[in-house]
Amino acid sequence: MNANALQAEYDRLKNQGLNLNLTRGKPSTEQVALADALDGILDGDYAAADGSDTRNYGGLRGIEEARAIGSVLMDVPTDNVICGGNSSLQLMQLVVDTIANYGLDSKPLKEVRGASVLCPIPGYDRHFVLSDSLGLRMETVPHLDTGPDMDIVERMVDTHPQVGAIWCVPKHSNPTGITYSDETVERLAKLPSRRKNGEQPFYILWDNAYSVHDFDGFTPLSSIYEQACKHHTENRIVLFASTSKITHAGAGISFIGGAEPVLAGIEARLSTMTVGPDKVNQLRHAKFLRDKDGIQAHMRAHAAIVKPKFDVVEQVLNDQLGNTGLASWTKPTGGYFVSLDVKPGLAAKTVQLASEAGLALTPAGATYPHGNDPNDSNIRIAPTFGKLEDIEPAVTILGVCCRLADALQ
Amino acid sequence: MNANALQAEYDRLKNQGLNLNLTRGKPSTEQVALADALDGILDGDYAAADGSDTRNYGGLRGIEEARAIGSVLMDVPTDNVICGGNSSLQLMQLVVDTIANYGLDSKPLKEVRGASVLCPIPGYDRHFVLSDSLGLRMETVPHLDTGPDMDIVERMVDTHPQVGAIWCVPKHSNPTGITYSDETVERLAKLPSRRKNGEQPFYILWDNAYSVHDFDGFTPLSSIYEQACKHHTENRIVLFASTSKITHAGAGISFIGGAEPVLAGIEARLSTMTVGPDKVNQLRHAKFLRDKDGIQAHMRAHAAIVKPKFDVVEQVLNDQLGNTGLASWTKPTGGYFVSLDVKPGLAAKTVQLASEAGLALTPAGATYPHGNDPNDSNIRIAPTFGKLEDIEPAVTILGVCCRLADALQ
Repeated sequence: MNANALQAEYDRLKNQGLNLNLTRGKPSTEQVALADALDGILDGDYAAADGSDTRNYGGLRGIEEARAIGSVLMDVPTDNVICGGNSSLQLMQLVVDTIANYGLDSKPLKEVRGASVLCPIPGYDRHFVLSDSLGLRMETVPHLDTGPDMDIVERMVDTHPQVGAIWCVPKHSNPTGITYSDETVERLAKLPSRRKNGEQPFYILWDNAYSVHDFDGFTPLSSIYEQACKHHTENRIVLFASTSKITHAGAGISFIGGAEPVLAGIEARLSTMTVGPDKVNQLRHAKFLRDKDGIQAHMRAHAAIVKPKFDVVEQVLNDQLGNTGLASWTKPTGGYFVSLDVKPGLAAKTVQLASEAGLALTPAGATYPHGNDPNDSNIRIAPTFGKLEDIEPAVTILGVCCRLADALQ
Repeated sequence: MNANALQAEYDRLKNQGLNLNLTRGKPSTEQVALADALDGILDGDYAAADGSDTRNYGGLRGIEEARAIGSVLMDVPTDNVICGGNSSLQLMQLVVDTIANYGLDSKPLKEVRGASVLCPIPGYDRHFVLSDSLGLRMETVPHLDTGPDMDIVERMVDTHPQVGAIWCVPKHSNPTGITYSDETVERLAKLPSRRKNGEQPFYILWDNAYSVHDFDGFTPLSSIYEQACKHHTENRIVLFASTSKITHAGAGISFIGGAEPVLAGIEARLSTMTVGPDKVNQLRHAKFLRDKDGIQAHMRAHAAIVKPKFDVVEQVLNDQLGNTGLASWTKPTGGYFVSLDVKPGLAAKTVQLASEAGLALTPAGATYPHGNDPNDSNIRIAPTFGKLEDIEPAVTILGVCCRLADALQ
């Protein structure tokens, strides 16, 4: 199609007055409704398995049956889990604030000039905003199909003593959808041992947000906690998970996983700021999700809703952009995103054209620290929240806009 | 009774092998059960009044009908309320962390050498621990029957530029049970205007934890927010409340009240660390408590359980310590505590003797910063959690221990 024909096609789509949205990495109404049995599930019985009253104060680490859910999601023993409130991001803020300003079993990272964290890119924008809000610099590392480029990561850890941590979304990564290879997990687990006594310790921030969010079957992920125990680095690994994309997105429960010194350090900080988490909601979740089998059965119901949307994205991207040389994209086996890489220099223009045609896309660059994609290439597609029938027209507009952006160059 | 007779009485009580506890400032099982209709109250309808889906992400300030509950508790318009998760202490930590390390509409307090907060004593131990954890020094101010000694407070604000805030529990104060007089509230509201432009601003931290926790009738408290608006200091007042001692202590909802610049500053920080609060639980609370009338009716049911316990404390203290010259104590009209002042030098010994006789008391000094009561005089009595029939033997032991402690001197 030449530029004039593309412009005509674009104008035709634009004149339909559509109002479509591929920005929202959140579950659809159908998905959250799968957990509607939560409210009322206690049937008047507020006692935890250990007999304690979930209605009253106390218990900074959460109730055991809820910590057992975290154990499944993070692949660590239940004793190595703290269960918190509705936001794992808030737990991440607590952990990184502790590492940065208080020290977690060592001196505060912020005492080092140029204190930084490693950010594999493209990545999760909220990790970047959180790091920035705590005054930490961000050093980017490219993603490969196997996870962060470990040659670069290892070199950074060796040569940049002011780098104190790395953010990881190890399974169905946001936004690339990749799952870290066994070799990447083991090399990450060994990273902290590259720092000697007296040097700034190095932490692995393991945000396993999509650990059970598979479309078909189950994509395995090596256990970083086991690897860390093998290499004696377990005191430098902090794992996170939540039920936000399992039950009710805004009203779930969240988890920190780690070795006892990590949990004790976090508990000490929690003790200064809260009397304990919402244990009633923890009990609801334990009764609703039950165990590994219960979680997996529930996630199959999610997959039945979500997978058809990703199938449409893949098909329309192929129709629109296959063999054009203009774009490549990920074909995730789970998670919430498709990561589209268009020809360098086209992303912002594509997003702008789409917006004018009635399709909201996540701002170009949002998957990079400070919103700055140096290649102006990456676009994050989030198809879960919209209706299935809206995905085809939405991705069609995206494809046409990308081709038009190229033709207009 | 002479020392020998007291020792004999003490030994007799001790030999009963009792296991009593007056340390726990938390509601009893009967009290939390008053709110058991919360779980299941939504009956499958998760829509907020504005039509939004409480199950999904978003809405940093909480849903309007829950903010309306905070409006009743804090005596501010609903538009001046943020509704959060289960812990108002966590909101206080966020606010004080912001004032100390980020600046709330001004430069960070921690940039001032010797950055401090004013702590009326005796006071709430968790305010002290929180301040200390953020590296703030604590300057104590004595409580009068009308609230903090305002002559001293005003002098401190004028002469100590490094003092950046004051902690207040204005109604049924923890532990003294006093409610601030109208004059005290107005003088507090005017405090921030004593600081000029360019000087460190001064904040009022207004923890109205017991605003509706009356035993009989209703003890009025002047609205500090109204006073602050009158004196143009409203940008320096931050109010807090929660439903922790109204519904389920560990599973309630919490509130920040303030002028728009205060709320916007806090929302900006929240946006870096969470996608939003648990709106499902907010909706439950709005449906359960409904409005001011609903809250007051619910609090009358609490009072029916709590007041008889305080009546027994008053009667037994009178029997044991009245006219001995050894002690004075508060006669609260609401709240959770009786504050007992024994003859200087007797508190720690009294607590120790009680412990050995099977009565757990809050450690002497706990109501002072760093647990240090310079007079060794104050003992906090928390009668709500224990069974009614245990209050009489518990307070009897306390009385005997106080008299024995004196006799042993």
